[in-house]
Amino acid sequence: MAISVDTFFLTPDAQGTLQAQIQEMIAEGILSGRLRVGEKLPSSRKLAAHLGISRITVTLAYTELLANDYLTSRGRSGYYVSENAPVPPSYSPSQKSADTVDWSAAMVQCFSGGDTPRKPQDWRDYRYPFIYGQADASLFDHANWRLCALRALGQKDFAALTNDYFDQDDPLLVEYIARHTLPRRGISARPEEILITLGAQNALWLVAQLLLDKTRKAALEDPTYYTLRDQVVHRRCAIDCIPVDHDGLPPEAISSDTDVIFTTPSHQSPTTATMPMPRRKQLLDRAREIDAVIVEDDYEFEMSFLGAPSPALKSLDADGRVVYVGSFSKSLFPGLRLGYLVGSEPFIRQARALRANVLRHPPGHVQRTVAYFLSLGHYDAQIRRMAKVLHDRRCVIEEAVNHHNLSVAGVGVYGGSSLWMRANDGVDTAAVAQYMKAKSVLIEPGAPFFAAEHRKQNYYRLGYSSIPSNRIEPGLALLAEALHPNRAKAG
Amino acid sequence: MAISVDTFFLTPDAQGTLQAQIQEMIAEGILSGRLRVGEKLPSSRKLAAHLGISRITVTLAYTELLANDYLTSRGRSGYYVSENAPVPPSYSPSQKSADTVDWSAAMVQCFSGGDTPRKPQDWRDYRYPFIYGQADASLFDHANWRLCALRALGQKDFAALTNDYFDQDDPLLVEYIARHTLPRRGISARPEEILITLGAQNALWLVAQLLLDKTRKAALEDPTYYTLRDQVVHRRCAIDCIPVDHDGLPPEAISSDTDVIFTTPSHQSPTTATMPMPRRKQLLDRAREIDAVIVEDDYEFEMSFLGAPSPALKSLDADGRVVYVGSFSKSLFPGLRLGYLVGSEPFIRQARALRANVLRHPPGHVQRTVAYFLSLGHYDAQIRRMAKVLHDRRCVIEEAVNHHNLSVAGVGVYGGSSLWMRANDGVDTAAVAQYMKAKSVLIEPGAPFFAAEHRKQNYYRLGYSSIPSNRIEPGLALLAEALHPNRAKAG
Repeated sequence: MAISVDTFFLTPDAQGTLQAQIQEMIAEGILSGRLRVGEKLPSSRKLAAHLGISRITVTLAYTELLANDYLTSRGRSGYYVSENAPVPPSYSPSQKSADTVDWSAAMVQCFSGGDTPRKPQDWRDYRYPFIYGQADASLFDHANWRLCALRALGQKDFAALTNDYFDQDDPLLVEYIARHTLPRRGISARPEEILITLGAQNALWLVAQLLLDKTRKAALEDPTYYTLRDQVVHRRCAIDCIPVDHDGLPPEAISSDTDVIFTTPSHQSPTTATMPMPRRKQLLDRAREIDAVIVEDDYEFEMSFLGAPSPALKSLDADGRVVYVGSFSKSLFPGLRLGYLVGSEPFIRQARALRANVLRHPPGHVQRTVAYFLSLGHYDAQIRRMAKVLHDRRCVIEEAVNHHNLSVAGVGVYGGSSLWMRANDGVDTAAVAQYMKAKSVLIEPGAPFFAAEHRKQNYYRLGYSSIPSNRIEPGLALLAEALHPNRAKAG
Repeated sequence: MAISVDTFFLTPDAQGTLQAQIQEMIAEGILSGRLRVGEKLPSSRKLAAHLGISRITVTLAYTELLANDYLTSRGRSGYYVSENAPVPPSYSPSQKSADTVDWSAAMVQCFSGGDTPRKPQDWRDYRYPFIYGQADASLFDHANWRLCALRALGQKDFAALTNDYFDQDDPLLVEYIARHTLPRRGISARPEEILITLGAQNALWLVAQLLLDKTRKAALEDPTYYTLRDQVVHRRCAIDCIPVDHDGLPPEAISSDTDVIFTTPSHQSPTTATMPMPRRKQLLDRAREIDAVIVEDDYEFEMSFLGAPSPALKSLDADGRVVYVGSFSKSLFPGLRLGYLVGSEPFIRQARALRANVLRHPPGHVQRTVAYFLSLGHYDAQIRRMAKVLHDRRCVIEEAVNHHNLSVAGVGVYGGSSLWMRANDGVDTAAVAQYMKAKSVLIEPGAPFFAAEHRKQNYYRLGYSSIPSNRIEPGLALLAEALHPNRAKAG
């Protein structure tokens, strides 16, 4: 590869002769790893013209670098970075000078920290990945996804690929969601009531921006999805973290000064509890009584392989009080970053304006590819295939959990892709998770799901969406051995 | 297409017999457009099992709908939506009931309105599109883009496609930007100093969140990119809108209580002025003196076909005081939604945490496709090809502008893709733009670029990145006729 002449600049106030400056510039480029072995330098004529200096100066600098083994020459074809030049392991340019800006004073709010844990990027390298929410290569219909993506790259879809939609979305995708996806949840919505988002998390973020500030109060389930809690905390509003029971969020525990209620009725996150129909109505009644808005995160409704899911809370909403959040991240893959928000038109109008201000719109190609994958029926076929495999894994994991005397704290009645587990009191599952990693077992510690005031250390989540059936039992055997060392030895 | 049984629900408190409810549900589905002519209904056995009711009830409902011409039957194959059923023009479910939520009271901030204008999505249907920032199909290397996208869809890249990167980015793309893109701007940065964003607009938004609130003051160029002004206005900070001159932002006009300076030194947006080197140094000195952060939006630096661009302000920044924003939207296409932010590590760490909270990460496939397109050299080849064509169009548009006595208010010395124009005092270019649309000429009114207090109605922008050379003169002839009717008649 030839090194572009555009990457060479003379620093206006540099010390030393021009020749020395050029030598230093090239040597520094090689030492920092920016210029790599075998790459070709610009010709002396070209570099001289680019820098506006005499060609002889460049030639002399090159000759000197040749003598010092930074460069080699290959006859008339020019100068190359030498194999003998010192090579750093990877590109890491040296810091020019220390920052004089006090960034902690310059920034108005801190967003790092919070409860969202870091997760291993290399989970595929582990033998027993009881992780949650990543795509299983063996379940994803990669071939048809490629075909749909390719079709969306075609000449006919050039506008859908390249256009700036500003605050709009792919009309094909919106139409499909309105006509086919939402009716399955009992929801009817017009296109003006639907907004495509960068994943469900982005949808929840938009909602928190629009409905919360320091004058408002939010009710969160406890435990809950930690990133949602981070999002709400950043709004500096009052927060009630309400302990859930086996039926999910208890409506009577919601205080009357609450403005926004966040809930996951289909599969409570992370306990997987399903809210029964009578409680759904009580929740709607309670929200009406105190004039609060309900935000329903309906993630994983597609994973209902044990029975038809209940209709969404939104489908029972006669007041337009429920804002509904859907996602394709679980059923397709999380790297897709695509979800949607359904709500009353005045609300969606503001969410659309905010989204346009923050990022304009989710990339056109991603939207069109999903529209094809849905409308050609591949999505439904994939859901059916996944449901079958997840059902099988669910049977295997339940049996293994019983066999090894592990305690289930929560399990989805319609399906889902994880179990919510409890270890003995006093066990710190974060330490257990760390220990199990060395044995190639990945489990998810439960503490980050709990609000600080009720944080419990002895819960954990077992995901079964990315682990093959035949690895489940041996993985849990290792876990049981760590959790109950005496019992395992006795048995 | 068969209609999924999952889309049928009985409403718990519905009036009337079960049979009537089913009839109503189907009729409503047809009337609203959700169920389309020729679509097949679930069998009576399946629907009855799904709803948990007797099969005869479903059969009676179907028979009634058949008699009323909503459905037809095709022998033993089942029931279909009839061709004679009333068909609405498009899917628009009826509103169930009026919203009882007072959304204007429920929402804490309003994001709609603002200065960002709506632009025509159908610009390709116009003969003379002097628009800005949309992709020209004839200039984009669609074939190689497809190849790169396809490669990024391959088995080897499955993790890059599907993985949840959480707060991280595609390491290939970051590495390429660090090694090849930034050095062309004289910038050296380590991966920890680079964040990939959902377009440059998203990068600017992140910066505004981190650095501004009601205790801070921002300096904006005037005129400026309207969406940036909207973003800054939403932060509720103090704002100075500083009139630019032919060299861009004048440093001496920046008041000493300014915290953040937003500037576009390469091509001032929209006047296209290039800030000369001495002023860049003055600007850095001024920022150091008042301890302000500079945000450099280096959009369009690739469009420097008239001469090598000046190194970025960031390359002269010894203090770590400059936050740099780059974009691929102009050089590739805006529907891509990909840009990047370069700054000091403590700043980028917070920007990364905020981005993760808002949307996690830009989709993996988009990042990997760009990484391939860049590293295989297609990007550089495309830039060279675009530069050649834009240079040609620039010559044509300058000649046509002179020929028709149109007034240029600003023109980029290194290139760019637009001219900043001035009509006579008293001319409202918004009205002119509206009038020209009917003649298939699209121009962009200039008023939204100006802050409200100095808003001028007689400026406009002529983009030449999406109009073929041979359409430029005839398009400007029509415009000149509208702007100078007497002169045109005289000539």
